Amino acid sequence: MKIVLISIGDELLSGRTVNTNASWQGRELSNAGHQVVEVLTIGDDRSRIVQNLTEASLRADALFTTGGLGPTDDDKTTAAICELLGCEMVLNKEQQKLIVERFNSVGRQLNERSLKQAYVPEACEVILNRWGTAPGLRFRLNNTPIYVLPGVPFEMRELFNIILRDEIGSADGFHEQVWLIQGLPESVLAERLEPIEGSFSDNLSLAYLPSEGVIRLRLIRYNEREETLGAFDRAAGEIVQRAGEWIVSDRNESLASALARVLVERKATIATAESCTGGLIGGALTEIPGSSRYYPGGIISYANEVKSSALHVNSATIEQFGAVSEETAREMAAGIRLAIPADYGVAVTGIAGPDGGTAEKPVGTVWIAVASSTGIEARLHSFRGERDVIRNYAVNAALGMALKMVRASK
Amino acid sequence: MKIVLISIGDELLSGRTVNTNASWQGRELSNAGHQVVEVLTIGDDRSRIVQNLTEASLRADALFTTGGLGPTDDDKTTAAICELLGCEMVLNKEQQKLIVERFNSVGRQLNERSLKQAYVPEACEVILNRWGTAPGLRFRLNNTPIYVLPGVPFEMRELFNIILRDEIGSADGFHEQVWLIQGLPESVLAERLEPIEGSFSDNLSLAYLPSEGVIRLRLIRYNEREETLGAFDRAAGEIVQRAGEWIVSDRNESLASALARVLVERKATIATAESCTGGLIGGALTEIPGSSRYYPGGIISYANEVKSSALHVNSATIEQFGAVSEETAREMAAGIRLAIPADYGVAVTGIAGPDGGTAEKPVGTVWIAVASSTGIEARLHSFRGERDVIRNYAVNAALGMALKMVRASK
Repeated sequence: MKIVLISIGDELLSGRTVNTNASWQGRELSNAGHQVVEVLTIGDDRSRIVQNLTEASLRADALFTTGGLGPTDDDKTTAAICELLGCEMVLNKEQQKLIVERFNSVGRQLNERSLKQAYVPEACEVILNRWGTAPGLRFRLNNTPIYVLPGVPFEMRELFNIILRDEIGSADGFHEQVWLIQGLPESVLAERLEPIEGSFSDNLSLAYLPSEGVIRLRLIRYNEREETLGAFDRAAGEIVQRAGEWIVSDRNESLASALARVLVERKATIATAESCTGGLIGGALTEIPGSSRYYPGGIISYANEVKSSALHVNSATIEQFGAVSEETAREMAAGIRLAIPADYGVAVTGIAGPDGGTAEKPVGTVWIAVASSTGIEARLHSFRGERDVIRNYAVNAALGMALKMVRASK
Repeated sequence: MKIVLISIGDELLSGRTVNTNASWQGRELSNAGHQVVEVLTIGDDRSRIVQNLTEASLRADALFTTGGLGPTDDDKTTAAICELLGCEMVLNKEQQKLIVERFNSVGRQLNERSLKQAYVPEACEVILNRWGTAPGLRFRLNNTPIYVLPGVPFEMRELFNIILRDEIGSADGFHEQVWLIQGLPESVLAERLEPIEGSFSDNLSLAYLPSEGVIRLRLIRYNEREETLGAFDRAAGEIVQRAGEWIVSDRNESLASALARVLVERKATIATAESCTGGLIGGALTEIPGSSRYYPGGIISYANEVKSSALHVNSATIEQFGAVSEETAREMAAGIRLAIPADYGVAVTGIAGPDGGTAEKPVGTVWIAVASSTGIEARLHSFRGERDVIRNYAVNAALGMALKMVRASK
């Protein structure tokens, strides 16, 4: 199915809110083999909503809108739908009941604005919202189904999942294989894979999705014809051969998930010692439900005194070699395993900038070390970019290095 | 200026990449008083790029595109521009020189694909890219200026800033005041502010931007006429009166920045003890350059043994009251100040889910405590949502609680 997503909200245009709803929906639809052909973000403006829904309904097989259903006057989506369908707002008693129950259950006093959200355009079918106050809506325009969802991410997701399961379903024949590749620049990887891609027909495609230090490579097939299946398998084999050394995962997962999976398989644990990443590696490792199986905890040693007091880094080491040095990184990795007993200890110390760089150790200089019962490895990185970019590079490099060491052990 | 942003890339439609470029540009343009009227995300498809650039050039005062300039075959933006302008690709020697220098400076071998990025559509002016390989481009279509930028965020930002400074500038008369409001649901805040908003003319507007537990409230004026200035000041005064108790900042900043600012003003420090947030509070506090002035570090005590060993929580406390309890939160907050000496200690322990909830302590139960030399405060929260949502709520609640305590301490 060709699907258009319309995100509604002034806050999206002004960048006060990042449009994560569209990317989440794109991911779910693409995983189900559908194609999002366009994401359109417009403001809370009735006439623009009317115009864009009308136009998009002519070129899509289905249409999702998110946002503009809130209780405040700057939300215009339902008014636009009433105009489109020439209908009035009516009270939906079932949604009203859900709202009342929600307020009662948390002991909060019901207010009129929240109750207002139980009113819906009469010509729409209602998709009840049990996770919030504004219900989803369904109607057809130019015979295209249009699904209208609230903008609050977790409410949107619950309603979207129901629609995907019951009404949209999965496309036939679509399949993708994803590899995570670390340590090769995109241009070099592309050069290696060029001959493979050159041989593709329209049934296959290859996509590169680079983020800080990691490339997500997707091989996609669009049907299940015999020649397509054969070509897909050959291409996958070639990719593994040409990029094998740098492939860190052959699943569609995050680096942290790959590390978590390998640790759980081996019943191993890892503790973190973070300086410039300030807790982000711990944050990534605990994003995954059940992370207590492999992650006991970590120490954020931002100040040098904490490196010494909590991580047992010799203060003479810091004095002689500096806080950002191979020696300090090694002692941090060893020290975290003493402070928080774990099979592996990963340590990061670096200069994320914008200040603190020197000629010898410019901004972006990051040392990463991983310790285990059999030894310690350390590696120097020189990242480029802004503070947040350098920190993300460091998180990925640390997760990748730990992953390699855990895999290599035995 | 009315501006349209066009984001180009299959990875944006399929949700593999979140479109943070559009939100960043939206923020910068809106801060300069311009209005982003539409963000359009389309795939790497030459004919769609041609069509959408043509259409958008008719309804915008300026147009920015990002993405599709990469070295791989799935990038189509320059080909589309050649088609639009009826021109060929030519080598830009200055950009070529920059690419060669870049590769030399990091000691990497130059490859043909990277050099290919020095080729540009002949009819475009080039905006040299000193931060990456693909240059920016500038041309006019239907007399509307179109700026073509690479999709790599930090390269895009550098080029965008040059264009904003030298060519777009700031709109006259635009001004906004932002308040961060914590502890009031959006619907309740809106009810309180309804009378103010009802009195607005077209010269003023009010926008609510809720995120997990925090509302960013913006009061905007669109000109500098005398009556507008007066109405703006009256509205600002009313807002402070009606929401005062819940206003945690009157600047356009993050909660972490607000806390950082107050800590620096008072020359105070804070250490973190995190369980379910797994390092995200440390991550937020160190997002800000110069964070070592107020943040010595923290301990991520995901496992109960770490709460005892590293944070000095009595294991009898955990046994009797549970890891998620007021008693444990209080001991964690006190313990982090012993482990990492700091003026304040903030501790979070909770159940982020999806598993681990009980009837008595359901998923979303989070205890937060803040300790100082004068005592400890603790508060119970019941958050709703998915794991990531609950964790974000907890981060914001912890930062807000610390902020209030630091402010109150005097």
